[in-house]
Amino acid sequence: MKEELLVVKIGGNVIEDEQTLHSFLADFARIKQPKILIHGGGKLATQLAAKLKIKTEMIDGRRITSAENLEVVVMTYAGLLNKKIVAQLQKNNCNAIGLSGADGNSIQSKKREVQMIDYGWVGDVVAVNHSFIHQLLSAGVIPIFCAVTHDKEGHLLNTNADTIAATVASGMSALYATSLFYCFELKGVLEDIKDKDSVISEINLRKYNELVESGSIADGMLPKLHNCFEALKGGVEKVHIANSEFLKNPGIVHTVLRL
Amino acid sequence: MKEELLVVKIGGNVIEDEQTLHSFLADFARIKQPKILIHGGGKLATQLAAKLKIKTEMIDGRRITSAENLEVVVMTYAGLLNKKIVAQLQKNNCNAIGLSGADGNSIQSKKREVQMIDYGWVGDVVAVNHSFIHQLLSAGVIPIFCAVTHDKEGHLLNTNADTIAATVASGMSALYATSLFYCFELKGVLEDIKDKDSVISEINLRKYNELVESGSIADGMLPKLHNCFEALKGGVEKVHIANSEFLKNPGIVHTVLRL
Repeated sequence: MKEELLVVKIGGNVIEDEQTLHSFLADFARIKQPKILIHGGGKLATQLAAKLKIKTEMIDGRRITSAENLEVVVMTYAGLLNKKIVAQLQKNNCNAIGLSGADGNSIQSKKREVQMIDYGWVGDVVAVNHSFIHQLLSAGVIPIFCAVTHDKEGHLLNTNADTIAATVASGMSALYATSLFYCFELKGVLEDIKDKDSVISEINLRKYNELVESGSIADGMLPKLHNCFEALKGGVEKVHIANSEFLKNPGIVHTVLRL
Repeated sequence: MKEELLVVKIGGNVIEDEQTLHSFLADFARIKQPKILIHGGGKLATQLAAKLKIKTEMIDGRRITSAENLEVVVMTYAGLLNKKIVAQLQKNNCNAIGLSGADGNSIQSKKREVQMIDYGWVGDVVAVNHSFIHQLLSAGVIPIFCAVTHDKEGHLLNTNADTIAATVASGMSALYATSLFYCFELKGVLEDIKDKDSVISEINLRKYNELVESGSIADGMLPKLHNCFEALKGGVEKVHIANSEFLKNPGIVHTVLRL
């Protein structure tokens, strides 16, 4: 039987509030099983860009990443946020290591080709180095991934954190019985975006297709759900979309996804 | 007989010129032995601070590190520079991993106590996790350290890169026959700071004490030399202070240090 692995992604709103982040990290540190954390941090990058008078342009929630924006993203995600998270986990006796995809060639991606939109220095994941990640986990070292990858041609690439979480979880599911947790500020996937309590407790592939067709799901949630089902198709056993309190109270209302 | 290990430190001037940096990294990638790179990056942090209207204050070449300055240092060193270096090494088929001292608890330090001067969030190294670094090297993974450490109390600390290089080299010398290379823009330690060719080819402890007493050595070089002799006392076999071309042409004029 394969060993359990938890892949946890935290969103920007959890990161931005220091108290919420520290509480979340204390819960994450207490997880006994092998585990991986993936974090975004979009708003902080936007704030730093504004201070540096660098224009931020978003299309469908995705950052158009000029060379200048990429530097801001790398400084914020791989620098400030990643190292703050690692230092805090070390304090909590979790032997964390912060990684971009370039580190140990852990996540390789390909610069997105220009079709309708030129996203700039944005990458789509092509390979997860699961043997290296497995080596770290076996040594009791907990990988903390930021949303930066590389193309092995010397370029860093801004990469969606939800997608990284899904592809890392899929990649690791060959070696581990892998669960994927998307933790954010809401309680789960909402039937009605205006009602924070309208959590859909379970979504299977049929329900997902119905939701997409009905157009009732909020825009930002659609790519997240897409990632969840890609992860399930890739071999991940369970996917949960939940509040950041979920690690502390797995009994709280949240959304479970199954094929 | 112990295996050889090369610990190489590059200074700010090498990093700031992209062509010099890429040439240096190509040479570093070609080294066959186990190796570790340590980098600073002071001027880029100062430039970013200026853009963000954060005051930079230096005393004896050391940065007074306020909370704001620390964020700039972490963004620049652990973020932008470290990840650019790692991505470039990966391009050169060197399986680099970028690390702050917090990552894998690899370098723990202690916030410098306030005596005459309050340096702020500056740390002095107290422990190098040589077994973790050895694990990485044994797996063919090349550690690239930036000048940021942590106190295991949740705080990141700005730490002098020369000192990190010396303490990492000392720490590893229990396991490896370790050489330490300080690579920078000059040819070596100069007898006369105004004459770039007045390289002192060899400095032993007696010569070092003579140089300190005569006051002929440039201010910035004194702490570097101090670090060199600390490394030699700590078990490092050889220390070289040389131009960044040294890895390509070990025959060029430079300074060797011996006890």
